[in-house]
Amino acid sequence: MDQEILNSLIMKNDSKIMYLIMDGLGGLPREAGGNTELETAKTPNMDKLAEEGILALLDPIGYGMTPGSGPAHLALFGYDPINDNVGRGILSALGVDFPVTGKDVCARLNFCTLDADGNIIDRRAGRIASEINERLCKKLQDSITLSDGIEFFLKTESEHRALLVIRGDGLGGNIHDTDPQQTGVPPLTAEGKDEPSKKAAKYVNEFLAKVKEVLNDESPANFILARGFAKHEPLPTMEERYGIKCAAIAQYPMYRGLARLVGMKVLPRPETYEAMYQQLADNYDAYDFFFIHFKKTDSYGEDGNFEAKVKVIEEVDTWVKQLESLNPDVLVITGDHSTPAIMQSHSWHPVPALLHCRNGLSRIDHTNSFGETQCGQGGLGRMLMKNIILEALASAGRIQKFGA
Amino acid sequence: MDQEILNSLIMKNDSKIMYLIMDGLGGLPREAGGNTELETAKTPNMDKLAEEGILALLDPIGYGMTPGSGPAHLALFGYDPINDNVGRGILSALGVDFPVTGKDVCARLNFCTLDADGNIIDRRAGRIASEINERLCKKLQDSITLSDGIEFFLKTESEHRALLVIRGDGLGGNIHDTDPQQTGVPPLTAEGKDEPSKKAAKYVNEFLAKVKEVLNDESPANFILARGFAKHEPLPTMEERYGIKCAAIAQYPMYRGLARLVGMKVLPRPETYEAMYQQLADNYDAYDFFFIHFKKTDSYGEDGNFEAKVKVIEEVDTWVKQLESLNPDVLVITGDHSTPAIMQSHSWHPVPALLHCRNGLSRIDHTNSFGETQCGQGGLGRMLMKNIILEALASAGRIQKFGA
Repeated sequence: MDQEILNSLIMKNDSKIMYLIMDGLGGLPREAGGNTELETAKTPNMDKLAEEGILALLDPIGYGMTPGSGPAHLALFGYDPINDNVGRGILSALGVDFPVTGKDVCARLNFCTLDADGNIIDRRAGRIASEINERLCKKLQDSITLSDGIEFFLKTESEHRALLVIRGDGLGGNIHDTDPQQTGVPPLTAEGKDEPSKKAAKYVNEFLAKVKEVLNDESPANFILARGFAKHEPLPTMEERYGIKCAAIAQYPMYRGLARLVGMKVLPRPETYEAMYQQLADNYDAYDFFFIHFKKTDSYGEDGNFEAKVKVIEEVDTWVKQLESLNPDVLVITGDHSTPAIMQSHSWHPVPALLHCRNGLSRIDHTNSFGETQCGQGGLGRMLMKNIILEALASAGRIQKFGA
Repeated sequence: MDQEILNSLIMKNDSKIMYLIMDGLGGLPREAGGNTELETAKTPNMDKLAEEGILALLDPIGYGMTPGSGPAHLALFGYDPINDNVGRGILSALGVDFPVTGKDVCARLNFCTLDADGNIIDRRAGRIASEINERLCKKLQDSITLSDGIEFFLKTESEHRALLVIRGDGLGGNIHDTDPQQTGVPPLTAEGKDEPSKKAAKYVNEFLAKVKEVLNDESPANFILARGFAKHEPLPTMEERYGIKCAAIAQYPMYRGLARLVGMKVLPRPETYEAMYQQLADNYDAYDFFFIHFKKTDSYGEDGNFEAKVKVIEEVDTWVKQLESLNPDVLVITGDHSTPAIMQSHSWHPVPALLHCRNGLSRIDHTNSFGETQCGQGGLGRMLMKNIILEALASAGRIQKFGA
């Protein structure tokens, strides 16, 4: 839907919309004809919602496309996962809770090891401990100053990985990786592909030259490699797009960052599922839309741990029971993408989704449990993920009639 | 999916993908509540694959659109059936196995009969025998020379129909038909709609003037009418688009030509179904993707012969049994369009499709036989035909993750 048209149709009311996102929810059976993780899990509360509500299968990007977490979440929020995609460097910044601004070019760094000739012998510097990484970041931050008042920020991620942010006016992020992705060769020089990016690349190369001096006496981490340069291009907020005040309840930095990117108020990091519920209840009156993110479904999928993924789905189902007391007008339960345990990775399979409305204004279907196969029979059909927000907004009475 | 993005995501591996295409497969029941041709056919082998795999309904072009063979096959191969469509003249060239080049403008010809005033009295020259057509084509080819070194080629199709190819640099195919589609009026002059096409039209008109002289003493075929002028615009190959080496196994020239158009290696024409299997087995190691085309389902549909269409589907089902020995990673069984016997023509109905993966990486559904009604309940849903290649490539592990 064209944003201008949508804006002209958006209405406000006091309805509450809730997104309950289990990261990497979609799965696959372990053996032919078997059940997926979600189908294996005992989920009486979600099954009841499935029976009362309507199911769908959501394609995060498109047929056959496996999404990263960035584009998948943007699609959940109704953004175009390709055109509005966020660069890898920005996601790294979000992942370490770095507050990116419109002046920032971000990149992921690896500390690496160079030999005496300047060739890379270890792209990960022996996977140095995070504590060493922190010490080196501090050393670089304290020792280096860039010309022309350009600022830079370094932040440890873990082991050999860190974030680099270059901040200044008129910088572009269209810069080639300096990581050649192989050993036995020297690191590449940063090269910008357009004028603002050439300007940024100049400061990146100045930074790299100074890093080489400062780390000269270190071992094994005596240099850095940079990947995924990206400029932060602010997106219109969800409030601007849909007229809803949004709050995010999420434990992991990346998802907190993605929520911040689309203008959500990110509530303080909750330590437990119970704390997540309490935040929801405490802030229920102050917001129209709640994004609630559960990470572990994805983590166990990535680990290949089918049983643990089943178990965490069952824990979330128990958590869902509490939502009855809040009585949200529209509840969407889905994932951002599939992470089948048998694949130990994200996958292209469409994501099971459940839309439940307490106002009686949703169609229903004949499904009665929440799972991939039933979602394939769901009354909403198979659809692009970016459209589920429109179904949710409409169900909440927030989209007016188009045309007379 | 944007081609540039897709290119950046394509991976190579040693998986095998097989497309088994029954031309005009989709059908309709003979009486209300009855079964279609595919549902009537006894297809134990395809039913087993349906049970193990996942079904879909494919729209070749879009809702309500009845496709020709050209756009339907392009959609199967993942091309846009509208933007990448191939002109009628080019399809004629493919249909008689004429090796078109990037310098060629092609058109379909009818031999026709003019009266003494030059008005058309028979648009098909009494449907002359193909042998007469061949003699006339040779006579024209031997008698006529065009100016400026422009070449032309004539090739008999059958009865009154033939192919005309004009070859030269900088020619365009945007030329109006010279066939007025009615009798009692003179043939039209060729008119180009842009500069390259005006240039080509000049030579077409020179050719037509010379044809009139050469055929002056012939009866009833004393002139020609041309339709469907089209320039051959080479398409990116499937290997360029998807990184797969493709082989085509097909008996009929049109489909062999369509496969050649997208860069497939077209194996020598097989005489029998057994020979088709043998070609597949003999070439199995050398290619990543196999397009296998069965024509008779469409022919019997066009004939209105419901029983014969059923029977040929059953023959193909027996043929499918042999595929087990080859064990393709991904098998797609579908048609290019529907040709319901009761309509005796192509139709707009979406085409039943079956996706079967031996690697366990496809979702399944609750369907257990291959037919239109079950496909309407299929786990892949109803989708544009051009996307099925993306599902096949993803299932074969050939598309990487988008975004981080």
